[in-house]
Amino acid sequence: LDQPGLDNAAGEEFLREVLQVLLEEGVRKGTDVTQKVCDWKEPQELRDLLDLELRDEGEGPERLLQRCRDVLRFSVRTGERPVQTIPEGIFGVSGGFGVPGQVWGDPWPPRYTYEVAPVLVLLEQQVLAKLRQLVGWSSGDGIFAPGGSMSNMLAMNVARFRRFPESRSRGSWDLPRLALFASQESHYSILKGAAFLGIGTDNVHLVPTDERGKMIPEELEKEIQRVKAEVGGLHPPGGTTVLGAFDPLVPIAEICARHGLWLHVDAAWGGSALLAPKLRHLLDGIHRWDPPTPEGCDPPRGFGDPPFPRGPPDPPFGLLQRCHGVGAPYLFQKDKFYPPGLDPGDKSPQCGRPPSGLKLWLLWKALGSLGLGSRVERAFAATRYLLEQVKSREGFRLVVEPEFLNICFWFIPPSLRGQEETPEFWDKLGKVAPVLKERMIRGGSLMLGYQPQGSRVNFFRGVVTSPAVTCQDLRFLLDHIQELGQDL
Amino acid sequence: LDQPGLDNAAGEEFLREVLQVLLEEGVRKGTDVTQKVCDWKEPQELRDLLDLELRDEGEGPERLLQRCRDVLRFSVRTGERPVQTIPEGIFGVSGGFGVPGQVWGDPWPPRYTYEVAPVLVLLEQQVLAKLRQLVGWSSGDGIFAPGGSMSNMLAMNVARFRRFPESRSRGSWDLPRLALFASQESHYSILKGAAFLGIGTDNVHLVPTDERGKMIPEELEKEIQRVKAEVGGLHPPGGTTVLGAFDPLVPIAEICARHGLWLHVDAAWGGSALLAPKLRHLLDGIHRWDPPTPEGCDPPRGFGDPPFPRGPPDPPFGLLQRCHGVGAPYLFQKDKFYPPGLDPGDKSPQCGRPPSGLKLWLLWKALGSLGLGSRVERAFAATRYLLEQVKSREGFRLVVEPEFLNICFWFIPPSLRGQEETPEFWDKLGKVAPVLKERMIRGGSLMLGYQPQGSRVNFFRGVVTSPAVTCQDLRFLLDHIQELGQDL
Repeated sequence: LDQPGLDNAAGEEFLREVLQVLLEEGVRKGTDVTQKVCDWKEPQELRDLLDLELRDEGEGPERLLQRCRDVLRFSVRTGERPVQTIPEGIFGVSGGFGVPGQVWGDPWPPRYTYEVAPVLVLLEQQVLAKLRQLVGWSSGDGIFAPGGSMSNMLAMNVARFRRFPESRSRGSWDLPRLALFASQESHYSILKGAAFLGIGTDNVHLVPTDERGKMIPEELEKEIQRVKAEVGGLHPPGGTTVLGAFDPLVPIAEICARHGLWLHVDAAWGGSALLAPKLRHLLDGIHRWDPPTPEGCDPPRGFGDPPFPRGPPDPPFGLLQRCHGVGAPYLFQKDKFYPPGLDPGDKSPQCGRPPSGLKLWLLWKALGSLGLGSRVERAFAATRYLLEQVKSREGFRLVVEPEFLNICFWFIPPSLRGQEETPEFWDKLGKVAPVLKERMIRGGSLMLGYQPQGSRVNFFRGVVTSPAVTCQDLRFLLDHIQELGQDL
Repeated sequence: LDQPGLDNAAGEEFLREVLQVLLEEGVRKGTDVTQKVCDWKEPQELRDLLDLELRDEGEGPERLLQRCRDVLRFSVRTGERPVQTIPEGIFGVSGGFGVPGQVWGDPWPPRYTYEVAPVLVLLEQQVLAKLRQLVGWSSGDGIFAPGGSMSNMLAMNVARFRRFPESRSRGSWDLPRLALFASQESHYSILKGAAFLGIGTDNVHLVPTDERGKMIPEELEKEIQRVKAEVGGLHPPGGTTVLGAFDPLVPIAEICARHGLWLHVDAAWGGSALLAPKLRHLLDGIHRWDPPTPEGCDPPRGFGDPPFPRGPPDPPFGLLQRCHGVGAPYLFQKDKFYPPGLDPGDKSPQCGRPPSGLKLWLLWKALGSLGLGSRVERAFAATRYLLEQVKSREGFRLVVEPEFLNICFWFIPPSLRGQEETPEFWDKLGKVAPVLKERMIRGGSLMLGYQPQGSRVNFFRGVVTSPAVTCQDLRFLLDHIQELGQDL
């Protein structure tokens, strides 16, 4: 114990080399369109290539550097590759500005108290205040959570607590049967959350949507009347996952107010529209949620930057603390020399949390509100361009008119064109996307998501958010699908 | 849209400079003991210094670099500063080897499916298998969760589901009253989790512990008899947060088996003892949990490395999927060209998750099992040295004999030495730690946690995990407290 058990100089040198590898293999190759988007290997082959096994003896720096290179090489490159990484591209590294917040995200103490994370605590407060302002709230509370699913769960838990404060101590078994309403197109975390929180998936009522994926207010009214349970909360998406649809918030807010429903908008995807003057109308009614009970708006993901840990539920100040706080005496001492309101950790159902606010704060500083808005509008323009292309090309058919940044379409291969649209036709068409996806991945050329939805068979879902996308890239996207599906 | 909306070269240059700042300000100054551990500012002063406001216009690269420097400068430096950062030092950056996994943690797509994260999926499987092997299980399942609190909640939810599969669909309101047993010294996330999951904090039964913080098996037996509810699960800590105590697992496992309780050990802190031959006995009985129902062991935090997102609950294969899965059709398509068992995302209650396994895998590769074990044993030796010092120095008094890496002690200032230990004496002693802590932080010299516990007044809690700690550092720790408290 007389000497340190670590060599700091060697550690620093190693870190320097690792960062170099990150720049070269990760960032540069990740933004180079001549590189494959992925280098597909069968799982067993990849296991062998990576030499996964964990052994008794450690390895030297050179071997470790090689491992870092391998890890990057065989990972999917969702850098600034314009359209090759749709919709995975929504998670792309963007122009360097979002990256520092990520790169720096971890090597810090968790943010439970001001004393261990003064900067991060203040940054989080600032970003939350800015988001509230964007929504149109003059006050409120909030906390970042690790991801949109967790944010939705926080919202559901706070809604339950607000209505039944005794739920915290006595548990759900002692409450009346609760009911939760969401649209059929809402994110799957609503169901996961209902199961996790002890509400039960049977008690989630999925309200029918129209053809474009928007909740039908009359159906909501009917469903509320039908359900005999104690009414709990409503969870309409502001921007659905697959179709990118926005629920009609004004009539929905009125129904909620009438029935005393807690209203929470899942704006993890569509919230970025608030920054774009031309698109803000999609979230009309967002300021009206105050009267029923103000609640969260998940920070938007449409900036074309790395994923933000999302979700400041935004209830009246103090509710989060009363709902989640237990005041662990080894962290939240009552005899601190600074005001206890500065320690956010106890408001979360977790202990330490990653420094999410930092990413968003740095990006906002870099681009400004105007720059963020321009990104959203550029992405919208790219979607419109792609839409025109889909409409005008033979062999492509639009699933539904896009409202936002999702564009959903079928590729109809030569053998199916001009056929009568019988059940067999649709059955065959539904098998096209999986085949094309396999060809894309094996060739490493493109990553494009597909899924069925309701009675619709598998279709592709393009999500254009990267600011690096050009018209040429969008044409390549369709050209390439055409090329891959020529023999089908 | 004819030109990219981003300048990749400029972005890369910026990133290069940011990484340089990270190396200089973060890593080098973070490991330099001549630097302050924190540069305390009053919250309003810090707000002004950081210029937090988010404006309409963006800023240029130079200004942004300055912001990055400021963020690091005013954050608490928990680098390789040996003892200055106890117990926050358990989160210290360590010799560079844990860092790449962190630095690289974010710029990748979330790990819901093999197609978007092939490397990370396989790494996670490997690390989980290794952890199971360490515990002594030959098979099982698992998933990393963002933090120990979430891991405990996963464990509680899986326990409920195993006993009452209908809880998922019907919710807790339709179940009998559940009961959850944990030690009085268990982590506060047990209470938070009971509230969050709809179990209710009233239904958590905190079993009394002995003087050293270990659960008393006879008291557990009594508490089970007393509680008339349906018996749910037991949650003993393997290494408590404050005292570092290990519950006696062998007798506890027997009681659990007799009553059909699901046993989950929270080994987020103490699990690292499994790697150290001399300390493994602290977790004796860990292999015996198989019969009742095998469940999670949170990956250990005692390596002296950055915090691992913890917690692979380890139930029989398939249970996590049945408990948490909803099979979102846009991610977990049934018609993929590779086996669906490779997509771990649906087993989590969340959607995307950070690539936690990568950190632990790289660190393990760097040090090997033997190297990890040596780190734990070195930390244990340092604790023993500190223990001797506390026992032999005037003005220091041990709270309880340490079992592991936590050492809890009072500093008795000159004015209280030799006094009769009346309630007034203890009252005054309880005010000492907060005063010293304020002096440490304002001076930026040291970060050391304190807390009351049961009937014990505020005491300091030292946690020595950094491999950089030397005897000299440990003597400095006590010297400095003595110096700061000389006038009290």
